[in-house]
Amino acid sequence: MLDIGLISFENQVFRTYLGWTAILVLKIFAAGIYTGLMRFITATFANPEDLMSPKLKVKFDDPNVERVRRAHRNDLENILPFFAIGLLYVLTNPSAWLAINLFRAVGISRIVHTLVYAVVVVPQPSRALAFFVALGATVYMALQVVLSAAF
Amino acid sequence: MLDIGLISFENQVFRTYLGWTAILVLKIFAAGIYTGLMRFITATFANPEDLMSPKLKVKFDDPNVERVRRAHRNDLENILPFFAIGLLYVLTNPSAWLAINLFRAVGISRIVHTLVYAVVVVPQPSRALAFFVALGATVYMALQVVLSAAF
Amino acid sequence: MLDIGLISFENQVFRTYLGWTAILVLKIFAAGIYTGLMRFITATFANPEDLMSPKLKVKFDDPNVERVRRAHRNDLENILPFFAIGLLYVLTNPSAWLAINLFRAVGISRIVHTLVYAVVVVPQPSRALAFFVALGATVYMALQVVLSAAF
Repeated sequence: MLDIGLISFENQVFRTYLGWTAILVLKIFAAGIYTGLMRFITATFANPEDLMSPKLKVKFDDPNVERVRRAHRNDLENILPFFAIGLLYVLTNPSAWLAINLFRAVGISRIVHTLVYAVVVVPQPSRALAFFVALGATVYMALQVVLSAAF
Repeated sequence: MLDIGLISFENQVFRTYLGWTAILVLKIFAAGIYTGLMRFITATFANPEDLMSPKLKVKFDDPNVERVRRAHRNDLENILPFFAIGLLYVLTNPSAWLAINLFRAVGISRIVHTLVYAVVVVPQPSRALAFFVALGATVYMALQVVLSAAF
Repeated sequence: MLDIGLISFENQVFRTYLGWTAILVLKIFAAGIYTGLMRFITATFANPEDLMSPKLKVKFDDPNVERVRRAHRNDLENILPFFAIGLLYVLTNPSAWLAINLFRAVGISRIVHTLVYAVVVVPQPSRALAFFVALGATVYMALQVVLSAAF
């Protein structure tokens, strides 16, 4: 049933997983860098040793910084589980068309999620939609992996 | 020593890892959905664009929402490292009986952790026990992987 | 191009990835244990059921606890993506010398990051340096993976 040959650059499904995983790693890091930039722009530092001037004090409640941190945390909650389950899903030898489009759905919707959450705030339901497309695709993969483990 | 044939549905150890990883991915997502539900129930929204009514204001300190968020964050801290180390542990060709029971211990105790933390609050040491069973099992796997890398 | 034989104990690149991944899993868990210790030392508990004495109240703003929690969260943001991309990077068959030293750079600099952030606070730019060394190495791996997926 499982064929380790699936983990190969010849397998377009694995290749698509590989590419989107790398792009989403870069996207998560971009959220981190963006948090840092926002801290400098708003002079909001969480540690005394980070204060650039003796006039500054530590601050934890800048709404712009907190917004990026929420987007970043949402990435950890949703993208990191995808990294694990996406690889295992490749091993279940799924339909190439479906799997490739699920990976694209996760990748694109998670990028959109960050954009509408933390870069240009777009009214709901844009963020909810981006969230649920990625979640739905990943849940589907997890269910397929559970089924393949059980039978 | 390492045999890539270990990554196979024929290998009951890998299969158990696969199944519990998928179940725990779904469990992490359930914590996310539960946070969202709790936000609606308590009308606690962190973003202005999420407010359902002009009478509401953003709120960050609802104890019910924060409890689920702490449980969710604890998942990220403990389950996500398990996803990585569990797979590498399979590659060290461990005793099947031990490995299968370690995976079960992690899976079951992390589900119990969420239940006693965020669904029905059970007095300590129930949460601490669930936490340490999963932690102990994952630390053991990590030590076996370190040893296998070194020798 | 991709050779699944790369996932083997004979491959020093994979072995180095394996060893540092396991060490960093233990390092993340150490941050979690350290948070717990700091909670006891400062009597800062986030849940009513954790209070050791009826005189205590839940507390969320102890600076020592919050510092360790920030270091811990920074681990999740940076080390967990490394676990995924490091494995995929091994599959791109990189130069052994470069890959081994990149893994070492990530491992050592993330340990230094925790030490100077949460154990003995060292003035900046020590923490920033540790952060950017690990980030730079991981971004390089992610770019190599993107390129290998595309061509």
